[in-house]
Amino acid sequence: MSFPPAAQPGDPVAAIDTPALVVDLDAMERNLVRMADWTRQQGVRLRPHAKMHKCAEIARRQIAAGAVGVCVQKLDEAQALADAGIGDLYISNEVIAPAKLARLAILAQRVRLAVAVDSLEGVRGLASALRGRSVAVDVFVEVEVGGERCGVPPQEAARLARAVHEHHGDGLRLAGLQAYHGRAQHLRSVAERQAAIRQTVARAAQARDALLDAGLRCPLVTGGGTGSFEIESTSGVYGEIQPGSYLFMDRDYADNDPSPGRPVFEAALFVKARVISRRPGQAVIDAGHKSHALDSGPPRVLGRDLDYVSGGDEHGILRSRNEALLPALGDVVWLQPGHCDPTVNLHDELIVVRGGLDHGLVEAVWPVTARGALR
Amino acid sequence: MSFPPAAQPGDPVAAIDTPALVVDLDAMERNLVRMADWTRQQGVRLRPHAKMHKCAEIARRQIAAGAVGVCVQKLDEAQALADAGIGDLYISNEVIAPAKLARLAILAQRVRLAVAVDSLEGVRGLASALRGRSVAVDVFVEVEVGGERCGVPPQEAARLARAVHEHHGDGLRLAGLQAYHGRAQHLRSVAERQAAIRQTVARAAQARDALLDAGLRCPLVTGGGTGSFEIESTSGVYGEIQPGSYLFMDRDYADNDPSPGRPVFEAALFVKARVISRRPGQAVIDAGHKSHALDSGPPRVLGRDLDYVSGGDEHGILRSRNEALLPALGDVVWLQPGHCDPTVNLHDELIVVRGGLDHGLVEAVWPVTARGALR
Repeated sequence: MSFPPAAQPGDPVAAIDTPALVVDLDAMERNLVRMADWTRQQGVRLRPHAKMHKCAEIARRQIAAGAVGVCVQKLDEAQALADAGIGDLYISNEVIAPAKLARLAILAQRVRLAVAVDSLEGVRGLASALRGRSVAVDVFVEVEVGGERCGVPPQEAARLARAVHEHHGDGLRLAGLQAYHGRAQHLRSVAERQAAIRQTVARAAQARDALLDAGLRCPLVTGGGTGSFEIESTSGVYGEIQPGSYLFMDRDYADNDPSPGRPVFEAALFVKARVISRRPGQAVIDAGHKSHALDSGPPRVLGRDLDYVSGGDEHGILRSRNEALLPALGDVVWLQPGHCDPTVNLHDELIVVRGGLDHGLVEAVWPVTARGALR
Repeated sequence: MSFPPAAQPGDPVAAIDTPALVVDLDAMERNLVRMADWTRQQGVRLRPHAKMHKCAEIARRQIAAGAVGVCVQKLDEAQALADAGIGDLYISNEVIAPAKLARLAILAQRVRLAVAVDSLEGVRGLASALRGRSVAVDVFVEVEVGGERCGVPPQEAARLARAVHEHHGDGLRLAGLQAYHGRAQHLRSVAERQAAIRQTVARAAQARDALLDAGLRCPLVTGGGTGSFEIESTSGVYGEIQPGSYLFMDRDYADNDPSPGRPVFEAALFVKARVISRRPGQAVIDAGHKSHALDSGPPRVLGRDLDYVSGGDEHGILRSRNEALLPALGDVVWLQPGHCDPTVNLHDELIVVRGGLDHGLVEAVWPVTARGALR
């Protein structure tokens, strides 16, 4: 890379070049501790989803605070984090291609690795890849629990679990069930989320009972994201949750009505941007959708009541009828991204600030270890 | 980076890991030649926009085929391409921050560099950065020609051009006008695009005449993208066009009704993906919006009449009521992305295939030189 990072440790916030992805470390640390404490009190395991931050330094801190390991979605992510010293990784997704399963088997020789399956072909492919290697992989049977994406219906989970069990000699350890409902995380009202996740829990319980009825073990049910983890955690069915966004909190999750009794998480991830063009009624900033993902809607502009309009790949357009609200040419604007995960994936590094966005200092620059790790 | 590229030169297409960004080199070369030939015949200069491909190897080939240089949107892109040997770069965007202008001045010592301005502050900042360095930068005054993003109204262009001219001694060379209307590129009907770009041309001409009336020179009017370049090229006002996407052609541009007399460009950029989960009515692929941008709508699925539904960051969902149309578990699916530019920016390399997607071979793996170059 022949272009420099946006800042160096020791720089004041004002010196951070734009656009840059900035972590409010004080807020992130409070979020980290709140989730770790809460899961400890509830007696559920915490395995945060590292697909959100893709950062080995953050995974290390999550594990140091009590997480059992991290989830990833891709083998490349697992490999990148393993190379950076993370030793317990769960690919909470299906891996099908033989060449990729061969890579997975090699990775399993040096870290504790788990993977999800939702087909007999997937089980057999994994068994072929592991056979004769003297390694074991934890296997979770994925159940379709409302997300209508991957996973088998609950009534088919036992058949698949039996196939996993029958390949025990090849190194497949039946670890339990993957039961995650992604879309339900973003339902705005508490009542809607509770209704959706009650169905999710019921389907997970149905699958678990089917395994037990078939004489199989079901050591763990895992799932639950930032939007709903408190429901899975207290269901009596789930033994582990997989939230990712709680650490940074994007605008989309902040738009959810909060459930009672749930810990409060603070916004900790921001894009620092700058006004590069100005006219009456409009300020154009140097951050567009190559700086922050727009798939979950526009970012929130901190401290200013402005409309954000997409200006394309490299520009954002801030509009107001009230000229006094608009920033001046050259002014700094802070954005809270609509969606953390794909926003982080656009950046090579996180600029980590201690002491707040107004007067803080850059404490560290953390590489986004698994940025672009998409296979 | 600790994860491997999706393929190596010499691999058959079938061996390319998924998801991967694949260039059909034969199609790309035909597009490259068609645009170069067409602009030569029309007597306009071609300065392709490298924000689309961000790839030094492609920029070299465009220049070898007759382009005068390339456009970029960001100083980081210019720096990355300069380091890779590209010697004529136009940042067709405003640069305001003093620290960035200082970097720009240093870069101008080793390449021919141009930049756009749309404010007196921008002119003065650039002059301050260049002063005493014995370097010159070409400066284009950006005119707002319908895009409602950056640029001054035509009637204000002369005032700004005069300010540029007055800083000639500091190294600012008045190079002409930047006049680009981004949104008009995507109007579907020929009539709509013609109507919008006629306004664009009229505003560019008004600004040019204002410069001439003020006794200033206007050496060049530059602008025009893949959706409309044939209109700017034949307007008698524009001397240079800046198309980017013509080289790869995304689904969005392919959805435009073609103007008569315009060269035909072929799809040349694809995401190779694989089915990792399957159920009746649905196939889930391993490519989501971390693999291909969705800002201009969903990708087209090659050779299959299927609905693409976003499955989030790492999954795409293909649906059909006709089971026979759906690919099987493990099958490969090819996607034509909705929008090239932000799709390329998600990938570290282009897998370059000669001989077609069915039976071709990987000829090269080209790094996306300026991927993530967002400042």
